[in-house]
Amino acid sequence: MTTTATTLKGQPLDRQTLDAMLRRRLFFTPAFEIYGGVAGLFDYGPPGCALQANIVETWRKHFILEEDMLEIDTTVLTPHEVLKTSGHVDKFADWMCKDPKNGDILRADHFVEDVLEARLKGDKEARGQKVEEEDDPKKKKKRKTKAEVVKLEDAVVQEYEEILAKIDNYNGEELGELIKKYDLRNPNTGLQPSPPVAFNLMFQTAIGPSSNLPGYLRPETAQGQFLNFAKLLDFNMQQMPFASASIGKSYRNEISPRAGLLRVREFLMAEIEHFVDPEGGKKHVRFPEVNTVELTLLDRHTQLAGKTDVKKMTIGDAVSNKVVDNETLGYFLARIHLFLQKIGVDMNKVRFRQHMENEMAHYAADCWDAELLTSSGWIECVGCADRSAYDLSVHAKKTGAPLVVRERLDEPLIFEEWQVEIDKKKFGPQFKKDGKTVEAALEGTTQEQREKLAKQLTDNGELELEVAGVGSGTVKVSKDLVKIEFRKRVENTREFTPNVIEPSFGIGRILYSLIEHVYWNRATEDGAGDEARGVLSFPPTVAPTKVLIVPLSANKQFQPFVSKISQKLRKYGISARVDSSSATIGKRYSRNDELGTPLGITIDFQTVQDSTITLRDRDSTKQVRADEDTIIAAIQSLVTGAKEWKDVAAELPTFESQEVDVTVR
Amino acid sequence: MTTTATTLKGQPLDRQTLDAMLRRRLFFTPAFEIYGGVAGLFDYGPPGCALQANIVETWRKHFILEEDMLEIDTTVLTPHEVLKTSGHVDKFADWMCKDPKNGDILRADHFVEDVLEARLKGDKEARGQKVEEEDDPKKKKKRKTKAEVVKLEDAVVQEYEEILAKIDNYNGEELGELIKKYDLRNPNTGLQPSPPVAFNLMFQTAIGPSSNLPGYLRPETAQGQFLNFAKLLDFNMQQMPFASASIGKSYRNEISPRAGLLRVREFLMAEIEHFVDPEGGKKHVRFPEVNTVELTLLDRHTQLAGKTDVKKMTIGDAVSNKVVDNETLGYFLARIHLFLQKIGVDMNKVRFRQHMENEMAHYAADCWDAELLTSSGWIECVGCADRSAYDLSVHAKKTGAPLVVRERLDEPLIFEEWQVEIDKKKFGPQFKKDGKTVEAALEGTTQEQREKLAKQLTDNGELELEVAGVGSGTVKVSKDLVKIEFRKRVENTREFTPNVIEPSFGIGRILYSLIEHVYWNRATEDGAGDEARGVLSFPPTVAPTKVLIVPLSANKQFQPFVSKISQKLRKYGISARVDSSSATIGKRYSRNDELGTPLGITIDFQTVQDSTITLRDRDSTKQVRADEDTIIAAIQSLVTGAKEWKDVAAELPTFESQEVDVTVR
Repeated sequence: MTTTATTLKGQPLDRQTLDAMLRRRLFFTPAFEIYGGVAGLFDYGPPGCALQANIVETWRKHFILEEDMLEIDTTVLTPHEVLKTSGHVDKFADWMCKDPKNGDILRADHFVEDVLEARLKGDKEARGQKVEEEDDPKKKKKRKTKAEVVKLEDAVVQEYEEILAKIDNYNGEELGELIKKYDLRNPNTGLQPSPPVAFNLMFQTAIGPSSNLPGYLRPETAQGQFLNFAKLLDFNMQQMPFASASIGKSYRNEISPRAGLLRVREFLMAEIEHFVDPEGGKKHVRFPEVNTVELTLLDRHTQLAGKTDVKKMTIGDAVSNKVVDNETLGYFLARIHLFLQKIGVDMNKVRFRQHMENEMAHYAADCWDAELLTSSGWIECVGCADRSAYDLSVHAKKTGAPLVVRERLDEPLIFEEWQVEIDKKKFGPQFKKDGKTVEAALEGTTQEQREKLAKQLTDNGELELEVAGVGSGTVKVSKDLVKIEFRKRVENTREFTPNVIEPSFGIGRILYSLIEHVYWNRATEDGAGDEARGVLSFPPTVAPTKVLIVPLSANKQFQPFVSKISQKLRKYGISARVDSSSATIGKRYSRNDELGTPLGITIDFQTVQDSTITLRDRDSTKQVRADEDTIIAAIQSLVTGAKEWKDVAAELPTFESQEVDVTVR
Repeated sequence: MTTTATTLKGQPLDRQTLDAMLRRRLFFTPAFEIYGGVAGLFDYGPPGCALQANIVETWRKHFILEEDMLEIDTTVLTPHEVLKTSGHVDKFADWMCKDPKNGDILRADHFVEDVLEARLKGDKEARGQKVEEEDDPKKKKKRKTKAEVVKLEDAVVQEYEEILAKIDNYNGEELGELIKKYDLRNPNTGLQPSPPVAFNLMFQTAIGPSSNLPGYLRPETAQGQFLNFAKLLDFNMQQMPFASASIGKSYRNEISPRAGLLRVREFLMAEIEHFVDPEGGKKHVRFPEVNTVELTLLDRHTQLAGKTDVKKMTIGDAVSNKVVDNETLGYFLARIHLFLQKIGVDMNKVRFRQHMENEMAHYAADCWDAELLTSSGWIECVGCADRSAYDLSVHAKKTGAPLVVRERLDEPLIFEEWQVEIDKKKFGPQFKKDGKTVEAALEGTTQEQREKLAKQLTDNGELELEVAGVGSGTVKVSKDLVKIEFRKRVENTREFTPNVIEPSFGIGRILYSLIEHVYWNRATEDGAGDEARGVLSFPPTVAPTKVLIVPLSANKQFQPFVSKISQKLRKYGISARVDSSSATIGKRYSRNDELGTPLGITIDFQTVQDSTITLRDRDSTKQVRADEDTIIAAIQSLVTGAKEWKDVAAELPTFESQEVDVTVR
């Protein structure tokens, strides 16, 4: 298992060089940069936008099309009441502190963590120990506090370590106490910040002209799916289980966003809500198809023991050993694994980490995050939670809408029981203001009590019941007011609130992590310099552009070939770009290696003579040569994933290029 | 030219029946309905979501892929300063009035329009004239004020009609005066509303925890594209012209949204910003390809004459006759026409309406809307404006960013001219506080003046210049302070701010209008009742689901065929749904006619014997029968648009179904 970030070829990953390349090639760029930018907001340029679209398209095929999910598109604007019910208004908050002098706003948990980690680091240095970046899921953020070399007492070191291990567990008051107790100071001013206050992470706005309808930008797409549950069940002709899915923007007003695309304020999510009967162990009919998929798991017990050792295990074993709670949850973990593999993620840099008890929402039955290893540590890219019946229940309770499944029973359930039947018309006049109380007392009797009371009615023509607060505390009811009989009750339907398994994907985080996983450096080919050339080895299916078309020079003879090939590729829906600039062929190819373009076509003087063209593979830089139609057929099979480069290289004649640096203009 | 809304087959269009069907089949649904709903917010259910995705995908191929546009994805959250510069903070507003009694909020122009139209209608009735829905672009909203039958004086009728003709032309104050002058009253309370106040239509929020960065949800995607102009030009290797494009949500806090999907607060837009050199007549290299496309045009002169007569004209003629301002604008109008045709819009219900002078933004050179005829009148679905250099200029001016193109000139431009060269070091000490003023006066001289001043310097060793406000008004400058010489200046580059042609698509409006255009009613096949059955005749390319798979009954023998065919279609990326409910075959097909599913496969007892299946055409209800692979190949060619049903019907044997209503379970 890899534990530190490297390039695809195992080279140390230089984040700064990579980021510079990504911005230069316009994968993404700070939004509003000419206005000074806004933290946590990024725009995707053409390659980033295409990469995002291809990841989303692969996701849609892998999940929605493959499983007949019901895709819906719900609004981002959400009225207050909905998010009040869901708990977001009260609980979707981080703790924030303010520096009394310069007004620095600090996220309290990150601040405590930063200062304590810096002190521990200073202590290690003072003790002459080696200081290394830790590979702990808790410590994935970059330190911003500089370490002072000061030795601490052993007991203090232990205290700090214990605090850090459970940093996610403190509330605002407790974080405030830690700040006071250990005199934690903002390194920028040397002052203790103010006590933490809760800061809700939702962006607020007002809907309509009268400003009396407060609303928010949704923090997740899930709520829109829950609110439509009854309609979706209808659309699915009442059949269970089924899943809905949404792809759309969500928003979090982060206190101090950093780490580029990994912590942003506006982001694309793809979320699935799989509705399942809570009874019968949450089986999944397609589980046998993924049974043998091997996952890398970091379970909660290991973490509670302060360790991060992963286990490799088939999902079949994980479910049968109860490491993963149920088949449906397990099925989706395996499907997530297969999806990440499909888009080109390095599976040696993926682990599924189980949430610890105190980390999960109180209603969740189990929750696993797919984490991808990057230069910022292990990053949660996909969450997969069993949200139980929580959301549907709270919305149903608030609105009275029946967010339930009514299932016709194959065999009706028959209950034989004592039933109370009250003659309400006579009851009121008899008992006056106590009528309701007496009624409730009768309705509240147990089967055992009813049997006795029925006997009294038969024997005495009336029953005696203790009803606190009415008269002497004992009430008599005659048989013309109430009947108690042993009867049969038949239930033909069963009503239940489904549970929800929710795989939730942060597309931007996946996109960025994928870029790190497929990035590597190629030494310059002439071997002359040390200047590294960046390559992004995306699989052809997700690569932003599939084909680069390069005429050898600006010679006008090449133009008809360029046009014809462009048009053909376009007809097949294969995205291509032409680079007819005056740069050398080598330079033009290496520019496109940076964009991750997997294939290159060269049009040269031989093309003009015999209509053959060459096809270059980005990763090996090997080339083959054949006539236009053969090459285009090869491209099609590579782009759809039907063939790999080695197949094409075996079938078509190799072309030995001199990669002459022809500069003609 | 059609002028009233009808179904595809010319039947009168019953909006209520259609809307009920669309909600029942979950094309769209009011958002947050279980919480009482929020006006102007809608969710798309599975068929609406798929239809939207297919329209967007067709758009992407038709525009972005076809023209190598640079697609980018920019943030919705936008800081105040950006939209202040663009003019939206000050001008993106509607006028709103409030009812003093019940607090009704009214959009002032709509209110004036409603009341005056109601009075005119009442007058017509009083005169015994026929009252019909007018076909005027100005009167496309539904009336909400009831007409009282009162005859007006002829002069008053004329006044009202003139007001209505230029209703878009009044500002808030003028609307207020109209309300007073004509005593316009809110029909709900019988009271005059308050004077109109401007209501900005942007949703406001605060970015970050300190609330000191106000921001908005973008009202258009365009600004994000303009701000990235310099980076996009770089990405495009400095080549002009080029276009960027964005597909994403935008927001308008409408005062009183109505008319379903046609006026909403959150909507999907697809916008293109085509950057073009303002010199050389804005030619477009691909204009000859669309030259002969015939458009239906309603130009501004016709409208100013109070008419709505359209002209059919090729875009080639329209540009050469200067009806349309330039080739690039004309090229995009034709491309918009072809796009609408491709997705199945009824081209008899499309017109391109030119904005009148007072309707356009002051900077716009020309602007045309593609309007689609619906039951709510002519609806603006696509705008195509020449925004000139406005946006790039204001952002460049505000930020200092060079949002310009620098073009190397093939032949350098040589200027021979009198140049002034000031010795600034000596100038200050000599003229003290007047230095800058004298300098400016010297720099401001014309070529003619300079020639004379140069002569003075040569002859007298000094020059005399009138400078208002300095000393006596005449200043002497000696030749050691200034030189004036006749020199050559060579310019190798030309710098210019590109103009922008902007085709801007409201996807939701297109989607809804398309639905009306493809909707029709089929009489029940047994001819028994009058009960109409709704059909949506989407072209296969945009239909939400392509194939319905129907096993004749719940017989278990059919299941393997259902699975196999589903899997094959999925492999080819063709969306299919199975309906194995107990409803009759006819009922199951007609349910899917409502969803617009173009093709149906039936699996029956013959399938079990010889593996043949039938394929049904939604529109004709005709069927063919062949083996599985032949049918799937036919489906592929229909779905990609390579073939039409008549081709398939000619090639494969017809199947005469009895459409027996088999109900087995």
